[in-house]
Amino acid sequence: MTIKRLPFDQAEYDRRLLMTRMAMALAGLDALFVSDPANMQWLTGYDAWTFNHHQGAIILQDADPIWWGRQQDTQGAMRTVWMLIGYESDLVNSMERHPIEDLARHISGLGIQNLGIEMDSQHFSAKGFSVLLQALPDVGFADATGIVSLQRAIKSAPEIEFMRKAATISDSVMQGVMKYADIGMAKNQLVALAYRDAMQGVDDAWGDYPAMPPMLPSGSDPAARLLTWSGSPLVAGEDMIFSFSGCYRRYHAPLCRTIFLGEVSVEKRCAEAALIESLDAGIAAATAGNRVSDVAKALAGPLGDGDDIGKGFGGLIGVAYPPSMTDDVISLNADSEAILEPNMTFHVCPTLSVSGANVGIGQRVFESLRMGQQRYLVAYLLNLPPNRVN
Amino acid sequence: MTIKRLPFDQAEYDRRLLMTRMAMALAGLDALFVSDPANMQWLTGYDAWTFNHHQGAIILQDADPIWWGRQQDTQGAMRTVWMLIGYESDLVNSMERHPIEDLARHISGLGIQNLGIEMDSQHFSAKGFSVLLQALPDVGFADATGIVSLQRAIKSAPEIEFMRKAATISDSVMQGVMKYADIGMAKNQLVALAYRDAMQGVDDAWGDYPAMPPMLPSGSDPAARLLTWSGSPLVAGEDMIFSFSGCYRRYHAPLCRTIFLGEVSVEKRCAEAALIESLDAGIAAATAGNRVSDVAKALAGPLGDGDDIGKGFGGLIGVAYPPSMTDDVISLNADSEAILEPNMTFHVCPTLSVSGANVGIGQRVFESLRMGQQRYLVAYLLNLPPNRVN
Repeated sequence: MTIKRLPFDQAEYDRRLLMTRMAMALAGLDALFVSDPANMQWLTGYDAWTFNHHQGAIILQDADPIWWGRQQDTQGAMRTVWMLIGYESDLVNSMERHPIEDLARHISGLGIQNLGIEMDSQHFSAKGFSVLLQALPDVGFADATGIVSLQRAIKSAPEIEFMRKAATISDSVMQGVMKYADIGMAKNQLVALAYRDAMQGVDDAWGDYPAMPPMLPSGSDPAARLLTWSGSPLVAGEDMIFSFSGCYRRYHAPLCRTIFLGEVSVEKRCAEAALIESLDAGIAAATAGNRVSDVAKALAGPLGDGDDIGKGFGGLIGVAYPPSMTDDVISLNADSEAILEPNMTFHVCPTLSVSGANVGIGQRVFESLRMGQQRYLVAYLLNLPPNRVN
Repeated sequence: MTIKRLPFDQAEYDRRLLMTRMAMALAGLDALFVSDPANMQWLTGYDAWTFNHHQGAIILQDADPIWWGRQQDTQGAMRTVWMLIGYESDLVNSMERHPIEDLARHISGLGIQNLGIEMDSQHFSAKGFSVLLQALPDVGFADATGIVSLQRAIKSAPEIEFMRKAATISDSVMQGVMKYADIGMAKNQLVALAYRDAMQGVDDAWGDYPAMPPMLPSGSDPAARLLTWSGSPLVAGEDMIFSFSGCYRRYHAPLCRTIFLGEVSVEKRCAEAALIESLDAGIAAATAGNRVSDVAKALAGPLGDGDDIGKGFGGLIGVAYPPSMTDDVISLNADSEAILEPNMTFHVCPTLSVSGANVGIGQRVFESLRMGQQRYLVAYLLNLPPNRVN
């Protein structure tokens, strides 16, 4: 079948399949059922909002990938992937039968002996697994969570280009937010403008939907960073941490800034200086051959002795679908022994908790504290210095 | 603990817990682990973008609900829910240990004998279940997918108010889209304006993020309705089906219109008439006491004999998180025997495939064909006629 509308050329997809098949062979798998939509998109180009239903790609060693999903979604899959199997819509929400029974029949028909499943993916349910186990007593199953995500960690040159486009969108959104944010403005109004700018994109980088909405906790909220917004207004003297990622064809490049409406205390200036030092140290340590822990330790150095220092600095970025922006196979933690390879892409986001800043209300000095910033950084081939995009 | 920032009063949450506990008792469960974020929010008020990690609410018969999730997310949970247990961030992405091991310890400590799990939810993984089975050999497990979703099907008066607010946002977005759409406009530019209007909201109905982004397939795409947009332009003579839902505090009220840029053929006018007839018939059949199949058959009546007629007309709506807009426990299919109860809320979306419309390019007649429209409809208490919004 002719492949249409794919973001990359055939050679790029051949490379991805080859890497995945090598990893499968190492794990002793003759087939892999890929249900994570980011992994599915990366391998086959399939990109549709159908991941609320049971679906996946069956990757074999010696035949084209097979898309498996709802019959009515095959129309979308035809535009991108090689081989298609659709299950009848009767199976959706049926109390008697389960879509995975259909998958089991195909796995059996293909003569698969050892099947890898992304068991800790959000996109393969406990129920699905129990149906599969019951239907296929003679098949060996292995937990293959992370196998494809790890292959995605190292980006090709065309992928880096896509990420740079996403980064220009992140920049544009953040510049807008700095300009629009004002005391008394309702948070949802700020989000409205951020979304507009993000979808408009920049030049030929048209805006795709991000894997996470903007986060903009403020005041006493920054401790709860993943609460979303409401109609409440921006208040003078409160910090707001604005996090967002532009998205271009499912590739992300997140960015985060702390915006402060009011006079900035000396204590916060000190925190800003420490965070900039942290970022600089972390990025300097991010060269191919170093371990992830080296980066995390370098990031932690200037930040003092808090309980959580050394953890949660960020993670791998690239293709993403809701609800996760980062790929969880490698996180920027001080105990991660993963080795940095050329063209891995991370976002880095050190944060510090600063208490007791008292600020004159009414005097409006618009400032961008660079606390909690994120950059996407790329350790280039041949150990060139990492390139900084914001 | 004092409950703060909850969208509804304590009596409403007491009602929800009571209904859920009755359903649990009928199913022989002394506890329920609720991992679907919509169910979690409905029961406890917890609303944060943390559902990319293992988390859930433990519902007991004789004690307050317990929030369980990452330690760093307890700050967000403190604002809303009753009791909290946080697991250490070391468990996230650990190769040796799994967060569900922590959950298992608490389940054991609580003396739970029969635990219901949402096994076919996207938010409880196959891996999580296998960890739980291994850690708790003496606990009985039951698939409780849908138990809470079914309780959510019937809306209280304050919930209906929230849905009306979401509907005013849907209306505002659609009116904007009708105004902005133009030949040659890039689709992402139209999405940019739609998102802006959706987040701005209407009056005191501030815009929350919807569970699905806008869908706007056009030309040969409408067969693949869940492909998202690109930077390609709107083309004269092509239909575009624009689907979107406004969202107010996680409540949704989807709306869908077909927009046609060009002269509308007689064939499409006929399709429009059939769809309007279908909607009117479906809504007339949507009274308490009727079966869902009665509505689906009424909707199908005017649409002819296509293969898929009678299926996929829509489903229950209310609280939703990505990736699902509808609650899959009741779908508007001709084989659904579910009985309509007062204050259930559905979206209804009949569609027809129309081929061969040839249209004069260059002559721009902006028309809104009402093909593929969706309404949210409410069958009121006492069998009053269903109320139509849009």
